[in-house]
Formats: sequence, structure tokens, C-alpha cells
Amino acid sequence: MPSTRFIFGFHAVTSRLRQNPNSIREIFIDATRTDQRAQELIKLAENKKIHVISCTGSKLTSMSGNDRHQGVVANIDSSSNYVSIDDILNGLTEPARLLVLDGIQDPHNLGACLRVADAFGVHAVIAPKDRAVGLTPTVYKVSSGAADTVPYISVTNLARTLKQLKEQGIWIFGTAEDAAHDLTHFPISGSVAWVFGSEEKGLRRLTRENCDQLVRIPMQGNIESLNVAVSAGICLFETHRQQFWG
Amino acid sequence: MPSTRFIFGFHAVTSRLRQNPNSIREIFIDATRTDQRAQELIKLAENKKIHVISCTGSKLTSMSGNDRHQGVVANIDSSSNYVSIDDILNGLTEPARLLVLDGIQDPHNLGACLRVADAFGVHAVIAPKDRAVGLTPTVYKVSSGAADTVPYISVTNLARTLKQLKEQGIWIFGTAEDAAHDLTHFPISGSVAWVFGSEEKGLRRLTRENCDQLVRIPMQGNIESLNVAVSAGICLFETHRQQFWG
Repeated sequence: MPSTRFIFGFHAVTSRLRQNPNSIREIFIDATRTDQRAQELIKLAENKKIHVISCTGSKLTSMSGNDRHQGVVANIDSSSNYVSIDDILNGLTEPARLLVLDGIQDPHNLGACLRVADAFGVHAVIAPKDRAVGLTPTVYKVSSGAADTVPYISVTNLARTLKQLKEQGIWIFGTAEDAAHDLTHFPISGSVAWVFGSEEKGLRRLTRENCDQLVRIPMQGNIESLNVAVSAGICLFETHRQQFWG
Repeated sequence: MPSTRFIFGFHAVTSRLRQNPNSIREIFIDATRTDQRAQELIKLAENKKIHVISCTGSKLTSMSGNDRHQGVVANIDSSSNYVSIDDILNGLTEPARLLVLDGIQDPHNLGACLRVADAFGVHAVIAPKDRAVGLTPTVYKVSSGAADTVPYISVTNLARTLKQLKEQGIWIFGTAEDAAHDLTHFPISGSVAWVFGSEEKGLRRLTRENCDQLVRIPMQGNIESLNVAVSAGICLFETHRQQFWG
């Protein structure tokens, strides 16, 4: 994996500036953007002592490989991706949105979960060090770049981490087929960590016990469970829908 | 693929009875179930001249391989899965829910889409004969049984099929990144067909032109698109949520 990569768009670059500024080499911004959002990003970069370079939109398109950069691209050192949960929570100016994966061993599933996490503005994906696949080259490939934009944090003791998140006011919602709450009428607000188990075994006992609430995705058919990335996508979409539109 | 399979649960067995009764060899029902739902299923089976056998719950668990059968299991001939769209629409007693896949060539994606379709009570998955993977052994395996419960219909001319669905009062909703409507505040009611294109190319021009509305799933990050099964899961969940809970 090359250690230099480009990330783009206001959400990704601002998140990176807040959570892991040392991994940013420089930021390129469209010279024609003089609006408040651009001004704020430039100010934040200056506070973090990151060099900001003004350039043309077409140069940004060439760097990012597409035209969805919104006028901002950052050159990052992806070998320094590691940040702690505290770094992430301290840098937030909005409710936390976390994805906790308990025992996902298939690299395709982890890559797909990172894509979903990127799409729905998840601030970090948290997984145990043991019984988890980690960021392999296959995960990078399947994630379509999301492994660079979403912090992936391995923890030694997942149950202890969940307790610490709860102490910081984050709701821990676990997903289980036999849960009492149905996602279609489950209120979600504030800071949230969604917890998913492996497809075969579901949540481990200690993980389950550390959830504030257990929620099920309603299912009408013959299959027993949805793919973990599909489940995560549905729960994160519903979180987004409720938090932005009530 | 063996041609004898068991499907189970009231939703799956009733759908099969309405849509493709000739594929059912016999139906087994828990002798202790005397409620209205069981009575209605037995009556429907008798109308369709299907033999109904009364047995113990543990025998049903053994046949279906799990205890989620709700007291009903059907033995089906999965080699006679083919039904027409008209067969399906004529048998419905609820608003139609269809999944249209335009150019999905990866068997893992089709299998994952069938799982999602099964979970959210989709009445049929429709795809073009050309440029589509079809029901291969890999699709069967990935679908975890959903390839047996959800009718898969190949059509020669997808644009014409969409026109026919529209004439029958079914809303055709296509998904596209550049769509004007955001799924988080998009009203969904009545009979619906959700249309998804391939990850690389999206909807083909003619498919797109035959949609009543184009809808986008809101995305905040760097990745360009979600996996098709994740997108389908989100759109079908939202359809279910709105239709059942408003």
C-alpha cells in the first residue's frame, strides 16, 4: 500500500484536521472558493500548522481522480492513520457516530463496513485486536478508499471500551435478531455507537451485556440475518434520517 | 443444486402458494396451530389442491433446519421456480414491492440482493436476460436460501417491462447519485419497484428514462457509491418503515 494518498471533500478533510492533523502533508483548495466554509477550513488548517495551497479546480480533479472534491483535497500520509478514541471524541463538534464490529473476520465484510461508515459520516470504526481481520490489503481494496478516510481503531478489551464510551455519554446500541426494539420505531438521538456481531455468532455475551439497548432490523422472510454491511448501512441511514430530519 | 428444498414461515409459504402453487409438493403444518392464520393457509392450500400434512413442531424444525418456521414448512420443487410477473401481480393481496436489477453481473451482489429482498418481503426480483448474472450455484450459496423464496424473473426488454409495470399502477423509483430527491425525506406509498444499476455504470439511459422518480441515498464521505445490496437494503427498509409506521 502506498503511504501517500489524497482525500477530498469538506467532511473528510475537516474530520482529518480535527482528529489526526499530523497525518496531513498539505491541503489544496480551489482558488475561486472564498465562501465561509472554505474560510473556516483554511483557519482550522492554519491553527494546526498545515500548509494550504491555492490551485485550480481541474488540478483538484486530477489529484482526487474525480469531480466530487467540493474544491478541497488533502495529501495525507496514510501510514500514520492511528489515532486513539479520545483523539477522535475530543475533536468532535457534533454528536459522535461510531461503528463497533465485534468479531468480523471476513475482509470483504470489513471493507464493505468501512464504505458504509464513510458514506454516513462515522467518526471511527472500533474492533477488538483479537478475532478481527484488521486492515489487510483486501480490506483496503474493497473499501474503495474508505480505509483512508475512516479511522479504524483496534482495542484490547472491547467490553472495557464500551464501558468507557458509555461513561462519556455515548449510547451503545447493539443489534440482535431477538431484540425487544424494532428499528422502524426506535428513537435515536445524541452520540451513538452501533454494535454488530459476526454473522455466525452474533454479539458475544460481554459485548451484549454492555449495550444500553438491543435493536432488531425487522425481517419478514426465510433468511436468518442480513450481511453485516447491509445491517450497518440500514442502522446508520436511520440514524442519519432521524438526526437530520427528525 | 438439488431440486427439492424446504421453505418455511407464513410469509414465504403463503407467497409461494399465491404465486407458484405448482412448485409446491406438500405443506406440513404444526398440529397444535388452530388459529386463524393457520386456518387461512390450509384453506388457500386446499383451493390450490395442495396436500397439507399435520405434524409435530420438532419435525418441522428438523425439516427447515431451524426453529423459525412458525409452524409451517413447504416442500418445493425448486426446478420449477419460473413464474411470470403477471402471475405474481395477480396473486397479490398487498401493495407490490419489486426489486429491479439493471446489469448486476457479480454473483455475490445478486446473492446479497436476494437476501435483502427476502428480508423485506419483496415479491419478485426482475433483471434483464442479457448483461446479468442469473441464478448460478454461487448466487444460490450466497443467497442463504433466498434464491428459493424470492421469485427471480429474467426479462428480454427491461425498458418495456418497466413501462408495463407503470401501466399497472406501480411506482418506478430509480436510484442515482445525481438524483434530485433525497431518500431521507422521500414519500413512498402504494406499489413500488426499486431500480438499481451496476456499481460501475449506474442505470442505463433507457432504464433511467422509464423511472417515475430518481432518488439518492445521502452520502457524506469520499466513496462514490454504496454496494448495490447495501443500497437495496436501505431503500427497502425505508419503504417498509414508511408503509408500516408512516
